[in-house]
Amino acid sequence: MIVINAITLGLETSPEVMAAIGPALMTLDSIILALFVVEIVLRLYAHGLKFFRDPWSIFDFAIVAIALIPASGPFTVLRALRILRVLRLISVVPSLRKVIGGLVASLPGIASIFVLLMLVFYVFAVMATKLYGATFPQWFGSVPASFYTLFQVMTLESWSMGIVRPVMEVHPTAWIFFVPFIGATAFTVLNLFIGVIVSAMQEEHDSEATTQRQQLRSETELVLSEVRALRAEVAQLRRDQAAGK
Amino acid sequence: MIVINAITLGLETSPEVMAAIGPALMTLDSIILALFVVEIVLRLYAHGLKFFRDPWSIFDFAIVAIALIPASGPFTVLRALRILRVLRLISVVPSLRKVIGGLVASLPGIASIFVLLMLVFYVFAVMATKLYGATFPQWFGSVPASFYTLFQVMTLESWSMGIVRPVMEVHPTAWIFFVPFIGATAFTVLNLFIGVIVSAMQEEHDSEATTQRQQLRSETELVLSEVRALRAEVAQLRRDQAAGK
Amino acid sequence: MIVINAITLGLETSPEVMAAIGPALMTLDSIILALFVVEIVLRLYAHGLKFFRDPWSIFDFAIVAIALIPASGPFTVLRALRILRVLRLISVVPSLRKVIGGLVASLPGIASIFVLLMLVFYVFAVMATKLYGATFPQWFGSVPASFYTLFQVMTLESWSMGIVRPVMEVHPTAWIFFVPFIGATAFTVLNLFIGVIVSAMQEEHDSEATTQRQQLRSETELVLSEVRALRAEVAQLRRDQAAGK
Amino acid sequence: MIVINAITLGLETSPEVMAAIGPALMTLDSIILALFVVEIVLRLYAHGLKFFRDPWSIFDFAIVAIALIPASGPFTVLRALRILRVLRLISVVPSLRKVIGGLVASLPGIASIFVLLMLVFYVFAVMATKLYGATFPQWFGSVPASFYTLFQVMTLESWSMGIVRPVMEVHPTAWIFFVPFIGATAFTVLNLFIGVIVSAMQEEHDSEATTQRQQLRSETELVLSEVRALRAEVAQLRRDQAAGK
Repeated sequence: MIVINAITLGLETSPEVMAAIGPALMTLDSIILALFVVEIVLRLYAHGLKFFRDPWSIFDFAIVAIALIPASGPFTVLRALRILRVLRLISVVPSLRKVIGGLVASLPGIASIFVLLMLVFYVFAVMATKLYGATFPQWFGSVPASFYTLFQVMTLESWSMGIVRPVMEVHPTAWIFFVPFIGATAFTVLNLFIGVIVSAMQEEHDSEATTQRQQLRSETELVLSEVRALRAEVAQLRRDQAAGK
Repeated sequence: MIVINAITLGLETSPEVMAAIGPALMTLDSIILALFVVEIVLRLYAHGLKFFRDPWSIFDFAIVAIALIPASGPFTVLRALRILRVLRLISVVPSLRKVIGGLVASLPGIASIFVLLMLVFYVFAVMATKLYGATFPQWFGSVPASFYTLFQVMTLESWSMGIVRPVMEVHPTAWIFFVPFIGATAFTVLNLFIGVIVSAMQEEHDSEATTQRQQLRSETELVLSEVRALRAEVAQLRRDQAAGK
Repeated sequence: MIVINAITLGLETSPEVMAAIGPALMTLDSIILALFVVEIVLRLYAHGLKFFRDPWSIFDFAIVAIALIPASGPFTVLRALRILRVLRLISVVPSLRKVIGGLVASLPGIASIFVLLMLVFYVFAVMATKLYGATFPQWFGSVPASFYTLFQVMTLESWSMGIVRPVMEVHPTAWIFFVPFIGATAFTVLNLFIGVIVSAMQEEHDSEATTQRQQLRSETELVLSEVRALRAEVAQLRRDQAAGK
Repeated sequence: MIVINAITLGLETSPEVMAAIGPALMTLDSIILALFVVEIVLRLYAHGLKFFRDPWSIFDFAIVAIALIPASGPFTVLRALRILRVLRLISVVPSLRKVIGGLVASLPGIASIFVLLMLVFYVFAVMATKLYGATFPQWFGSVPASFYTLFQVMTLESWSMGIVRPVMEVHPTAWIFFVPFIGATAFTVLNLFIGVIVSAMQEEHDSEATTQRQQLRSETELVLSEVRALRAEVAQLRRDQAAGK
């Protein structure tokens, strides 16, 4: 049903299709939305307040709620958000749910590196605004504009031909600002990635190491039980000897 | 023979070479193709229906079949596909076969992340078509056009200077759409890569861990056999003592 | 307090905000700077010369010292550096401190690869200056200019359409210079990254392996103590027997 | 001495410096080159034919040989190669030698993936030449030109705005060719990188695993020696008993 809805929402972007079977699509769309609402209401009724403890339920609730907001004022933007309903597929398909769970689980490990990246961005954005804001207002006119331009520089898109070479024609030493910025962000983003990779491998490794350890332990325990049985036997031998005297 | 065919097919693209020895090249080409067909027919005859159970045989069969399609209608396109015959090298050289086998083996592990990426792309493509389709029809005029443009944005090619800055002149808040898109796809693709890396290292690690475990086990078993021999000796001692009394 | 200072320094870049509450911001700024100076002086007084042994103290000292340099001559540049005060957040928040510590710790492992990269850059920069300096002075006019252009080529920004294709119109064999350069630097940078990844995973792995080893050791020691107790018992048995005779 | 030579060769690219102290630099350069030649001749004399068995010696020999080629014909190109002398630093500094050794050691593991990449490139280059050679001769006019353009596409430089969008205006289905090409090469290059990473980590891991295994083995051997001593004692006990009867 979500897939059908995805297709209808996709088709609604095509003017030709809308001209031909527009009303039918709209009706199908409304029916599916109504079914979604009924499903959410039933789940709310069944689970009560527990419903809001499961993050996936909140996710479903938010998506259906977005679809119900009347799209009267800023028309196109809110209509566009209706396609987010397709994301309900994620909460329905278990393997996608697992992937998203894995992604979310790797977030805490990289939070402090992300804070550091934001800090580096803020420092460089304020500096860029002060240094180049007057001469290049279209790129560095304000701190948010500098943020956007520095994000572009970080992704290496047209950083030299598009941004830094023109800036260097006015400020010949601008490379002292931009080359270290690229180095610093590349190194920080690299560490962000390594954080995710290491935590992913850690998990894999842990589960495997546990298996391996258990096998070794079971073998060591076999030796231990043999030694204990032997000890019991020697003790019995001493008792026999004492009794035999 | 495949290598010779690769060279002749490469030479056929050069007008000068074609003018000089074109007919000879064409004849050599036909002979090699005929030999390929004979080889496939012989293998089909030899293995019967089993032939189609081996994926590499199907691969060879498909490549030769493509070469035999008469290139009458849309001329250049089908002639161009004849170079695919060079890919038969993969099924002939064992080390290449192994590499491709490894690549294919890593696919299932990343299938669900790929589905997620497609989902993210579809949601953003429909939204982009609704939001920017009217003002930038050359980039976001339809869902497929948005798919292509978003793929370009994901590869970071001219995403800012070429696409987002022009869009932001009309829709000043477009960065709210594109920067999270870049973040989301970069993070998902990163996880796609990590999936491949982790599974590759897992395999390496598994084979090594097995070796290590076996060495440790053999040592623990040495201890175990010693302890058991000792136990047998003590038991013998008790029997001797009982008999000696 | 650092966060408040970060906000005031950010607000100072906006002409509208400066027109409205400029003097108040300036005063707040001076008060915070005065507090920073007092703090550093107190710490200097408390620790004496030991203060300069802790790298974080030197870091704090340098940042406050930069803020105190009179910004009389080249005005904007030094005023811009004042935002570096925000970096004091790093030395205050423990998790950021740890991240930076980790980054710095991974530097020695990659130092020799970095030297190699610089060497490759120097060799190619001198060659580029000699080969293309006369025909493309804006890109390869001097060794530093070649360094910058080659850095741009290494980041793959407009390397072909912007630099190499124009160069190839004059020197048709320029690709023999640039394609190996891209290959060599990509491979070296890859190894730089691998160095960081491997050392990061090494650390993770080491700490985990230590735990695992300790668990195994404690089990083996349990076996060892059992065997020793058994040996003591057998020795006692022999003494009993000798005494019993 | 190599460092001094590096500096003189760098300074020779500057017209101002050459005008001022050009002859002095040239003389210093010749002296250093003469010393290099003397060193190589002495090493050749000392080691005889064994000299050519060490790859580093061959490397040094080749670099000095390049510097001695008379730069009469194509002047600038051969003069430019003289800077390669700086690479002798690699064979002199042990840590750089080790890094290069590591890089070279990782090459065999990725050779077959590199062959595969070349094969993919060749197939796509021949196809591109046939399909787009007639309409875009500046990019796909011949197989080598297509190779270069496809290399540019693989590095993602201006692939869409610079190459594919113009091509798509003539051949609207060109994305069917280029998007899979980007996917295939990205995936292959990713596997090339993984090959290097895995082999690097493998090495690290192996050396560490050996240490860990040895520690565990030494503990297990301690248990084993204790058990054997015990067995000897029990055997002695049996002999005593047999003698005591």
